[in-house]
Amino acid sequence: MGQSITLANLNDFIRGAAILGTGGGGDPYLGRLMLQQELREVSGVELLPLSALPDDAFAVSVASMGAPTVFVEKVPNAEATVRAVREVEARLGRRIDAVIPLEAGGINATLPLVVAAQMGVPVVDADGMGRAFPELQMTSFNIKGVRLCPLVTADDHGNTVLYDTVDAAAGERLARAVCVRMGGIAQIALYPMTGREAKASATPGTVSMAIELGEAVVQARLRNLDRCEAVAEYFRGRSPSRFAAVLFDGKVVDVRRETKDGFTVGRLVLEGSGPSGERMEISFQNEFTMARCGGEVRAIVPDLICALDRETGEPVTTEALRYGQRLKILGVSADPIMRGPEAIAVVGPAAFGLSEPFEPIEALQPR
Amino acid sequence: MGQSITLANLNDFIRGAAILGTGGGGDPYLGRLMLQQELREVSGVELLPLSALPDDAFAVSVASMGAPTVFVEKVPNAEATVRAVREVEARLGRRIDAVIPLEAGGINATLPLVVAAQMGVPVVDADGMGRAFPELQMTSFNIKGVRLCPLVTADDHGNTVLYDTVDAAAGERLARAVCVRMGGIAQIALYPMTGREAKASATPGTVSMAIELGEAVVQARLRNLDRCEAVAEYFRGRSPSRFAAVLFDGKVVDVRRETKDGFTVGRLVLEGSGPSGERMEISFQNEFTMARCGGEVRAIVPDLICALDRETGEPVTTEALRYGQRLKILGVSADPIMRGPEAIAVVGPAAFGLSEPFEPIEALQPR
Repeated sequence: MGQSITLANLNDFIRGAAILGTGGGGDPYLGRLMLQQELREVSGVELLPLSALPDDAFAVSVASMGAPTVFVEKVPNAEATVRAVREVEARLGRRIDAVIPLEAGGINATLPLVVAAQMGVPVVDADGMGRAFPELQMTSFNIKGVRLCPLVTADDHGNTVLYDTVDAAAGERLARAVCVRMGGIAQIALYPMTGREAKASATPGTVSMAIELGEAVVQARLRNLDRCEAVAEYFRGRSPSRFAAVLFDGKVVDVRRETKDGFTVGRLVLEGSGPSGERMEISFQNEFTMARCGGEVRAIVPDLICALDRETGEPVTTEALRYGQRLKILGVSADPIMRGPEAIAVVGPAAFGLSEPFEPIEALQPR
Repeated sequence: MGQSITLANLNDFIRGAAILGTGGGGDPYLGRLMLQQELREVSGVELLPLSALPDDAFAVSVASMGAPTVFVEKVPNAEATVRAVREVEARLGRRIDAVIPLEAGGINATLPLVVAAQMGVPVVDADGMGRAFPELQMTSFNIKGVRLCPLVTADDHGNTVLYDTVDAAAGERLARAVCVRMGGIAQIALYPMTGREAKASATPGTVSMAIELGEAVVQARLRNLDRCEAVAEYFRGRSPSRFAAVLFDGKVVDVRRETKDGFTVGRLVLEGSGPSGERMEISFQNEFTMARCGGEVRAIVPDLICALDRETGEPVTTEALRYGQRLKILGVSADPIMRGPEAIAVVGPAAFGLSEPFEPIEALQPR
């Protein structure tokens, strides 16, 4: 028996998931509302350690697909998500034993808990990336050979669309077009897999990690420590081989953002508080993708770039960025499963249209 | 036992289907090539009169979805269409007994014959509109309450997408987006129905009508009669209540055309050969939608507007329009099933973004 998500640790979880959202995944407040309502009706949602998932169990991922700028106006719909899961079940002739999160970050970290509560199954304490990414093929599941399809998109009106594509990239391309026509957001069920496949492809422990990340911020507040440093320290403490550090401390002086082809894309410029007036520029596609200082790359996907309020340590998502915000930018090395050559082909800079090559964040810092 | 389509009447059928295509449906030459190849392997494709379809038979429509401008470069794929039909069969747990054409015009009049030949089933001598229309909900099937879904789109690469939507308009909207992402053309299977439903909703006799229309042009050539008048006469002779007449005779002086959102849209201007220099302007969305002279509407959807070469009587499709062509514009009243108030809501001018109201073509001619 693993942990549970309950009303007691809800806020920690939501905050931690927003940190792992690396700027994407939508307003954490919405995820909190969704899950809070659900947790008032059930005592808690059981987290099943990845290692405890039986080899022959059947799990599926769920998510809200679309631009976070749209989520703000149109809250993800759990009922439609359950409908999408039922379609996958019907297609494969099998009932699910668990929900396995697609993303560790943002609303898509919360939605699996709501769906699992409604369907009466546990949530696997793992996900498909150890962070958030904007496209469906950008997962360790896909990198390790789990099929995306049958993929189902569903909307609030009762429309469902089921995809059977030759690869995950084709599924993303077709479903994104439908998502746009569904109003910029679609509820999806995807990556149906066995327990054996999950254990070979998922990033373990990321749901409980979100809870602990959120707790680390609270602990830092109680002890009046630097919240952002505390977050970095948590990452390093959890996995000593992991790089995690505050890369920049500054004020937002420019934000350009548009909702385009089903994504929130743009760039952010921060000006340092020191006398040198150094600037950091960060590009994003739902999530932050690359951070540069004076033309030099300091962090690039799949490594994590997180924006935290410099005083409170609260994560700031890309659609909530505003002129004048004081932020600390945290850089964290991605889970090793996301850094191999086969992973870089799927989630590396080129997948985001960036011409800069991937370099590990630990090699990009000034000495 | 009804007629068959064989190598002997292939050319007549293709020409007649292009006339009924009302400018849409793509280059008839491609349809001829597809069907010719198939007819070399089978002796003929059986046409089943609509009345001979048993009530409990199971039929499905097939089509190429997309902009005719794209069809020219990317020939509709019969194998993918069969795959789409198989998906519908699997979804409903039933094998088809016949293919029922969606459209009487263009490549989509030909494709059902190719698919039926490959699947070893007859083609019902009927269709869902008695002409061609650009959108999936624009059918007598839908007008009479047959469900569009399960609808399947398939591409050349092996991707299939299955839709279950609340209404036909939602199916069109979502599938159109996928069609664009599939490269501007998708093979589809749609409107699965029983024989009883077919008899209550289809436009009967339109496949054999295409053969006879094509024959009428040939007969006029043999007798050195006006080919375009002969086509009009055929329509009137087949159904005495039907209006059919040459509305304009002139030269193409302007064509504007673009491929937009999965359609070929634009307008055509003709200048009359007489001394008055009268002009006709015709708008189109895949098919011709409205013809005007000096600002006065002379024909409007769902009535048929056909462009024929003034000398040969060969139909000219919207993607083949060129400056300098000499054309006669034929206007034909739509099948009565397409003119009722419930039909006008689905296939009338407003459905094409036209602000002019529907008026029957017979009421629009100068006295």
